[in-house]
Amino acid sequence: MNRFILLFGLFIHVQYSTAQDKKVNFPEVDGYKVLVCDPHIHSVFSDGGVWPTIRVEEGIREGLDIVSITDHLEYQPHKADIPHINRNRGYELAKAFAQENQILVINGSEVTREMPPGHINAIFLQDANLLLNDDPIEVMKEASKQGAFVFWDHPSWPTQLEDGRVKLFEMNQQLLMGGLIHGIEVINGNNYYEGAVELALTYNLAMIGSSDVHGLTEWDYSLAMGGHRPATLIFAKEKTSASVKEALQARRTVAWHNSLLVGPEKYVAPLLQEIIKIQSAKYEGSFRMGEATVLSIILENNSEVEITLENASQYTFQQSLETVVIPPRTQKTIFVKTEKKLKNIEIPFVVKNAIIGVKKHPVWILKSPLAE
Amino acid sequence: MNRFILLFGLFIHVQYSTAQDKKVNFPEVDGYKVLVCDPHIHSVFSDGGVWPTIRVEEGIREGLDIVSITDHLEYQPHKADIPHINRNRGYELAKAFAQENQILVINGSEVTREMPPGHINAIFLQDANLLLNDDPIEVMKEASKQGAFVFWDHPSWPTQLEDGRVKLFEMNQQLLMGGLIHGIEVINGNNYYEGAVELALTYNLAMIGSSDVHGLTEWDYSLAMGGHRPATLIFAKEKTSASVKEALQARRTVAWHNSLLVGPEKYVAPLLQEIIKIQSAKYEGSFRMGEATVLSIILENNSEVEITLENASQYTFQQSLETVVIPPRTQKTIFVKTEKKLKNIEIPFVVKNAIIGVKKHPVWILKSPLAE
Amino acid sequence: MNRFILLFGLFIHVQYSTAQDKKVNFPEVDGYKVLVCDPHIHSVFSDGGVWPTIRVEEGIREGLDIVSITDHLEYQPHKADIPHINRNRGYELAKAFAQENQILVINGSEVTREMPPGHINAIFLQDANLLLNDDPIEVMKEASKQGAFVFWDHPSWPTQLEDGRVKLFEMNQQLLMGGLIHGIEVINGNNYYEGAVELALTYNLAMIGSSDVHGLTEWDYSLAMGGHRPATLIFAKEKTSASVKEALQARRTVAWHNSLLVGPEKYVAPLLQEIIKIQSAKYEGSFRMGEATVLSIILENNSEVEITLENASQYTFQQSLETVVIPPRTQKTIFVKTEKKLKNIEIPFVVKNAIIGVKKHPVWILKSPLAE
Amino acid sequence: MNRFILLFGLFIHVQYSTAQDKKVNFPEVDGYKVLVCDPHIHSVFSDGGVWPTIRVEEGIREGLDIVSITDHLEYQPHKADIPHINRNRGYELAKAFAQENQILVINGSEVTREMPPGHINAIFLQDANLLLNDDPIEVMKEASKQGAFVFWDHPSWPTQLEDGRVKLFEMNQQLLMGGLIHGIEVINGNNYYEGAVELALTYNLAMIGSSDVHGLTEWDYSLAMGGHRPATLIFAKEKTSASVKEALQARRTVAWHNSLLVGPEKYVAPLLQEIIKIQSAKYEGSFRMGEATVLSIILENNSEVEITLENASQYTFQQSLETVVIPPRTQKTIFVKTEKKLKNIEIPFVVKNAIIGVKKHPVWILKSPLAE
Repeated sequence: MNRFILLFGLFIHVQYSTAQDKKVNFPEVDGYKVLVCDPHIHSVFSDGGVWPTIRVEEGIREGLDIVSITDHLEYQPHKADIPHINRNRGYELAKAFAQENQILVINGSEVTREMPPGHINAIFLQDANLLLNDDPIEVMKEASKQGAFVFWDHPSWPTQLEDGRVKLFEMNQQLLMGGLIHGIEVINGNNYYEGAVELALTYNLAMIGSSDVHGLTEWDYSLAMGGHRPATLIFAKEKTSASVKEALQARRTVAWHNSLLVGPEKYVAPLLQEIIKIQSAKYEGSFRMGEATVLSIILENNSEVEITLENASQYTFQQSLETVVIPPRTQKTIFVKTEKKLKNIEIPFVVKNAIIGVKKHPVWILKSPLAE
Repeated sequence: MNRFILLFGLFIHVQYSTAQDKKVNFPEVDGYKVLVCDPHIHSVFSDGGVWPTIRVEEGIREGLDIVSITDHLEYQPHKADIPHINRNRGYELAKAFAQENQILVINGSEVTREMPPGHINAIFLQDANLLLNDDPIEVMKEASKQGAFVFWDHPSWPTQLEDGRVKLFEMNQQLLMGGLIHGIEVINGNNYYEGAVELALTYNLAMIGSSDVHGLTEWDYSLAMGGHRPATLIFAKEKTSASVKEALQARRTVAWHNSLLVGPEKYVAPLLQEIIKIQSAKYEGSFRMGEATVLSIILENNSEVEITLENASQYTFQQSLETVVIPPRTQKTIFVKTEKKLKNIEIPFVVKNAIIGVKKHPVWILKSPLAE
Repeated sequence: MNRFILLFGLFIHVQYSTAQDKKVNFPEVDGYKVLVCDPHIHSVFSDGGVWPTIRVEEGIREGLDIVSITDHLEYQPHKADIPHINRNRGYELAKAFAQENQILVINGSEVTREMPPGHINAIFLQDANLLLNDDPIEVMKEASKQGAFVFWDHPSWPTQLEDGRVKLFEMNQQLLMGGLIHGIEVINGNNYYEGAVELALTYNLAMIGSSDVHGLTEWDYSLAMGGHRPATLIFAKEKTSASVKEALQARRTVAWHNSLLVGPEKYVAPLLQEIIKIQSAKYEGSFRMGEATVLSIILENNSEVEITLENASQYTFQQSLETVVIPPRTQKTIFVKTEKKLKNIEIPFVVKNAIIGVKKHPVWILKSPLAE
Repeated sequence: MNRFILLFGLFIHVQYSTAQDKKVNFPEVDGYKVLVCDPHIHSVFSDGGVWPTIRVEEGIREGLDIVSITDHLEYQPHKADIPHINRNRGYELAKAFAQENQILVINGSEVTREMPPGHINAIFLQDANLLLNDDPIEVMKEASKQGAFVFWDHPSWPTQLEDGRVKLFEMNQQLLMGGLIHGIEVINGNNYYEGAVELALTYNLAMIGSSDVHGLTEWDYSLAMGGHRPATLIFAKEKTSASVKEALQARRTVAWHNSLLVGPEKYVAPLLQEIIKIQSAKYEGSFRMGEATVLSIILENNSEVEITLENASQYTFQQSLETVVIPPRTQKTIFVKTEKKLKNIEIPFVVKNAIIGVKKHPVWILKSPLAE
């Protein structure tokens, strides 16, 4: 029977590794690598639909840097078929598969309780089995003891929503005040939680984006059509587990989905600075209208994120509205009318697709000397 | 040689009529048909690159209702080869070609002078030859006598721009005050003129959009990639020359290019009312997060114009930012969180892609009873 | 904990049922429905990557009518985590999930031995557990006793290939002669087996196409880009398990992948008759060259299969080569020159994308009266 | 008024030169540059729809190397508006416009008579006016005297077709025998003339492909969707008028439209040799089926022409039919089964998209040593 295993091992390896890499690349920011992480994923080891190795391959194909498969500790609908007692098992299988690949796999679990405290993810666990405890406060203390990074999942589920803000039960407050919660999902699947942004800023929590995928990411996010799963951008010194953990503990994150970037201004602003680049800025010799005072400025979007800028200056644009949309990895030319020829230009833009607080957007300033 | 002409006539007819119609359809507004007109076009009879019949076929292929070929009266760079003295000739050729087709061809000319008064189009002319006169005021009086509709072209060309506003020479003012100008281009080619919007509102001028095409519309507007030439939407009782002229004289126009709609609020607002439709509005039984208070509203964009709505209410959206973009001819679902179940919903939106004054947008109100 | 299960059941249901149906429709042939079946699929219950329910949803999304999840009986690499002894389990889970949907799920298994006899699929099993027997001949007898349909998988794996033909070991011959094998894969994944076609015709075996998918069908067949998994077209009286079984036993199958159709002439020929339709055939009044004897014939491809026809007549085509490719669901016009005006036309074409024997293609005859 | 002309000249120049180059590149063959030429084009100077400069810009945008605007000498339907007597005028305008661009413009005319002799193009004329003569034989003699290259247009128009072959009137024969005709259109617009191939081979005529465009090439050939106009590939020593003329006189041409290449074997065969390249050929270590004798060969199509190869060997292909289609500028992998491991491989293919005689295709031989 040994020959079988050999042959099939080969078979499976070939089958699984024909991925056409679809890379996602963010530029470095302030000396940090910007890593793409999905920290909330399910497999057959709780109520997901795929083997943990498929989750690793999905991640590699989508260009992620880090995944954590976080099966429900308490909710085990496949128990009749997978009667495992080892809650680290999904991680072990994923980790072994990923070994030679360029993706980091982090051990994690989802603590799954009714409100309060609701659902809470703990990643960077040493031993998930030690979290099997009826008392949720004790569970969180154990996670802390293991040095885990703990974040509150989809914080408006199922009952706590009220007027956009998140309802805080006493137990939630206790966890927050006690430093037992370090992050909060501001994006989960297709949902953006405004109330969670408020909590993150109030309690100094890392803002997290995750897919919470149960089926296939292709089905949920139409990857082949150019879609992408929600994720957390982590500003890490290196692409290592230790660096990622350090970055999370320091709250250096921005949540990302489609065109949406959500995070504190101190990380969102320099990220935009690296993403939006001025390719050139000069007066057109003689464009159609023969005007000497029409400035042509080429902007480049150096990322996978669609950028939406709103003109916050008094300048008028010749060929477009005050709203400038720059699709991923493209350039856009804007034409700015100035009364007379200038030596420098400075135009503030509100970045409408980025969020740094409740209904609050960062400003990006187009600033350039002008070529003759 | 007669047989030749017969054969070739057939030949050319087949050659020219294989157009794949790419229709543009706007819904009726307040009982008016919304017709699509390009009133500023050039042919080989001045400095354009094509025979007038090609302009008609371009118009038919692009789904226009009305074209006017408006060659420069005074600027005749092809004179050595086309020494015609009849300034109605381009119109006659185009009209004859269009006869059996569903496009209206209007006789027009571009009066082409240095500033002042600059370039001025006159359409619905009886005889363009009578406009050949050195005195521009006399030319405008003759146009008026013929019952023509007269509009100021690209009003920031070439010298009159100043801080967004249009510089008015004494002669321009004289023409405006004398009722000799009835419209003004707020869109010409890829240019939007904010200053022209101000003048239109001040002097009760129809707001005009035009291509001013000289080469091929395909080259200027990438039609095969889904692009479109700039045009004037005319709110007419019927698709006849007489109705179109009446509509222009009554100033019932909105200028259109890509996502941009520019016109007085009294026409833009009801147009948006017909373009944006609420398909359904109801509370989701139990979407992912199990919340009873998430409203699902399906909006439909019933036009070729990309619509950009900005939430001006206090409601929070679950899956999108406050900006909702609805591409042409598509539906978009928004998810609105309400504190408790409502019987009716009313959400004001600023329509960012529509302009009703200098830096002024109309409001569209989503208003619907809510199904159980 | 009951409330949990309720909530999550709902959750999963919503998650899994958002499929955008991508239907595949073949026309009826000789009163038979042409059903699309993938009879060779793996799940986590042997060496596949997904839970059986995901296989059902993949099938529904791709428009299949029938799937059979056929996990290896003997090869159980996930045994440490899924120590089940019930070999019907994958079927039971898939069947329960599919209940309310429009896809048939058939109980099947892959008997997985070294050569001889190699790998053999048995579908329409009563109890797969009874096939756990060291003697492969006994296994096949048990399958027969249960009334199963049995087919030889990828018959050139791993050693038996020789000059295109399949090497027959004594045991293979014994199974074939004994009527214990009823079908053979002529297509498995991206492989076409010419030698298997020869065997199918010699031993009256149904020609089978299957995906043998282990990972995701999206990854193997680029579905979102218009790709499709290999499948077996089954000519059945009804879309019921009983009818499908009867059709397989009667060998009414054609294997299909991309443009490739492989089967006996008696099924391929009438299938092509329904797929390729003559929309119109008439002399062009006066096409560009003014010739009265150019016939314009519009052919329609009424299927998902790209059709490649090669002109086998003496007629010359005006606008194309002798090879006519008709992409799925499209029309193609051919222009045929005839010496004089005919009342009827008859043009034989070799259908290059269809195979009815070793290097043998069927002929489709374009036959039509000619309109004036 | 001088200032006007200056401004507008600039205007037009900008308008016309924003072409996004869509280059067409053929590799060099036997030391010759393969230049792309359209030698049959109409403008407003006969019955075409555009000014000659538009024809030059179309050519530049489509990546052509050479154009000749060949207006009808005798057929002048625009005479009422363009009463020119100078038949070189279209050439002069096109030439002046093209001066600084990288496209060669050749002086040409279409002699337009009823049959016989039908329509005949003469290019490389010194003075087209001298061809205005009632006697067609005299016209051809004058063309010869000027050193022109003369080719027969769409040789089945309008009466001479008979069973695929071209009907030769006495006058046609006289022209052919007298050496007054040097080429023949085998492709004109969407038409392929089998009979013209026969004549070309019999009378040593260059095989010509042309658009014969009257309207816009975009309309006739859907350029924005990836289409291309028909053209003549000319094998010239340099990209100069003199070299092109020499190449035509030496009959070094291949006609091209879409996937169709038509020419003498001595030019088509080496062209295919440069277009189709073997990227690698090696035995797969262990592909899915574990077979050691499956050869993986990567072919590259180094051109804009879709290549269709038909296996003419006894080898069987694993993953595809005997027909291999390689779209423009792509690679295709074929898997060839060999009985045992070989050191070299040699597989003849019939190139179905290339024509070297009546219903005759060239053979391209895949020949490669095999890497271990």
